[in-house]
Amino acid sequence: MTERDEPGRLMIAEIGEQPEVLARLLDHRDEIAAVRARLAQHEPRFVLFAARGTSDHAALYGKYLVEVDLAKPAGLVSPSTLTVYGSRPDLSGVLMIAVSQSGGSPDLVDSLTAARSCGALTVAVTNAPSSPLASAAELHVDIHAGAERAVAATKSYTAQLLALHLLLVGDDGAELLPERAAATLAGSAAVQLASRYRFADRLITTARGYSYATAREAALKLMETSYLSAQAFSAADLLHGPLAMIDSGVPVIAVVSPGRGGHAMTQALDRLSDTGADIARIGPVDGVPVVSDDVPERLLPILEILPLQQLAWRLALDRGTDPDRPRGLRKVTSTW
Amino acid sequence: MTERDEPGRLMIAEIGEQPEVLARLLDHRDEIAAVRARLAQHEPRFVLFAARGTSDHAALYGKYLVEVDLAKPAGLVSPSTLTVYGSRPDLSGVLMIAVSQSGGSPDLVDSLTAARSCGALTVAVTNAPSSPLASAAELHVDIHAGAERAVAATKSYTAQLLALHLLLVGDDGAELLPERAAATLAGSAAVQLASRYRFADRLITTARGYSYATAREAALKLMETSYLSAQAFSAADLLHGPLAMIDSGVPVIAVVSPGRGGHAMTQALDRLSDTGADIARIGPVDGVPVVSDDVPERLLPILEILPLQQLAWRLALDRGTDPDRPRGLRKVTSTW
Repeated sequence: MTERDEPGRLMIAEIGEQPEVLARLLDHRDEIAAVRARLAQHEPRFVLFAARGTSDHAALYGKYLVEVDLAKPAGLVSPSTLTVYGSRPDLSGVLMIAVSQSGGSPDLVDSLTAARSCGALTVAVTNAPSSPLASAAELHVDIHAGAERAVAATKSYTAQLLALHLLLVGDDGAELLPERAAATLAGSAAVQLASRYRFADRLITTARGYSYATAREAALKLMETSYLSAQAFSAADLLHGPLAMIDSGVPVIAVVSPGRGGHAMTQALDRLSDTGADIARIGPVDGVPVVSDDVPERLLPILEILPLQQLAWRLALDRGTDPDRPRGLRKVTSTW
Repeated sequence: MTERDEPGRLMIAEIGEQPEVLARLLDHRDEIAAVRARLAQHEPRFVLFAARGTSDHAALYGKYLVEVDLAKPAGLVSPSTLTVYGSRPDLSGVLMIAVSQSGGSPDLVDSLTAARSCGALTVAVTNAPSSPLASAAELHVDIHAGAERAVAATKSYTAQLLALHLLLVGDDGAELLPERAAATLAGSAAVQLASRYRFADRLITTARGYSYATAREAALKLMETSYLSAQAFSAADLLHGPLAMIDSGVPVIAVVSPGRGGHAMTQALDRLSDTGADIARIGPVDGVPVVSDDVPERLLPILEILPLQQLAWRLALDRGTDPDRPRGLRKVTSTW
């Protein structure tokens, strides 16, 4: 086997690049601050996000930033309403942010183009400044993550989160991220956790608040690479039905931040414990460690996902699959 | 075993009541038209929905009605932003619709109260006119479904869908629903399908457009009653990652409407077929029949869910569980 063919080589390399990618994006913060200044002039009354797959989880994070930190209403657009059904709403005063690594997904380009023609101010957040999505939008934010070659997105996800934070909230607290990311990635607890799930068919992830995006993205990463049935639930929704399917045979990964989101999970975690569920915690307080000292809660999702990416990579290898070649999937833009 | 203890007795009785529930709600259409007239006076610029569990799927349906039929932007609120994080956005000109069977969920009451204090026009859609949620809202829509005693919501769901349609779009095309619902429920294909999934551990549901709510609700119903891991994906999102976990061992239920939503699924269904997946179709065209002649596409979700409720009920019985007593769950308001 040549080095080039080694299973998971691309994915683990890109996971490891993240401290450097975050630092590089911070070096470009002035670029994003200029776009931020343009948004401020428009004073949007409402923010719509459009995205698919991993980028949809970055959009979900962005929605929390808008609702909590900007105190404006926000929504995730259902792209089919603009494309399949051809709806043409009045979007004057609305900001639409489309998020896509490749900037090449045709239905996102169509949705953003439709939104722009309906009066929305449009911003594309991509890793590809010359992509169709970047061209279609009035404003563009480059996440500067470098070419992403693994099919399972990792570094582009954390770069999208930081780019959205820089765009919507600014750089407050972000300076610490590259070092904290490196320290978190240096841990080995997530890789050890993989042995626990070697024969699991299904798994639940849960979180609340900003970290809900982390639970969603972790579930997708595990599905893509290890083919297990991983489902994410907000800790609040978990009590409204899905709890029935959890017993001691269905492991739970709970992302428990040290902030208000994690604190609000207490009731759900107690109920889960009552069912005899196997619960692994991800977070600074206990369980799989996230090194996040002095990092504000709203930035934690950029760090929390890191051990979960490592878990997905290791679990795929343990189960004999190649996380660089998920069956049935392809990246929209492939560079080789 | 007394009749009272017969497993699934409550659930199947309430499934069977739905034609009558829909007819009763239509008899009350003037009540809802009066609320609709109040909304029209306010000309909301944006609609936010708040809900949990099954009601969240009704809210998702409502979001499509707003985006497509009212051509206004809409969003599903993340309740934690208003409650856990205490955000107080400017919601003047915003309509917030909270959907809840019982009207008793404290975090919804808190979200709606916060939204009202932030300037939103608030409407509660409940099955309980004297509930805290109904009292907290400026306007109330009673779904008139009668007491729901089964833990797995069925008749309250279809009544919520129809109530949202009457509130947002009107009664156009709705007259046919009670008869079509009765004809759909008279079929036995869904109950036969249960034997196919007797030993399945996981299952995927998929749809697009209005019917995406059906896929989400069907997955929840199967999780609650049969404890299998059922996941719903928009047919568009399915191609962005989850496809990797589907092979011939993971059955797929595709809700394929005869309208634009179903038509837009062609590419995804072709890709699924390529993986060798076992696909059952729900819809008027082929597969498990939905009797929907002359019913407009935007009302189909009220009919499509019916055979899937029957499937969830039958599968639970086949697997030896009592769908009336899902483990770990309780209804917020229990009447006995």
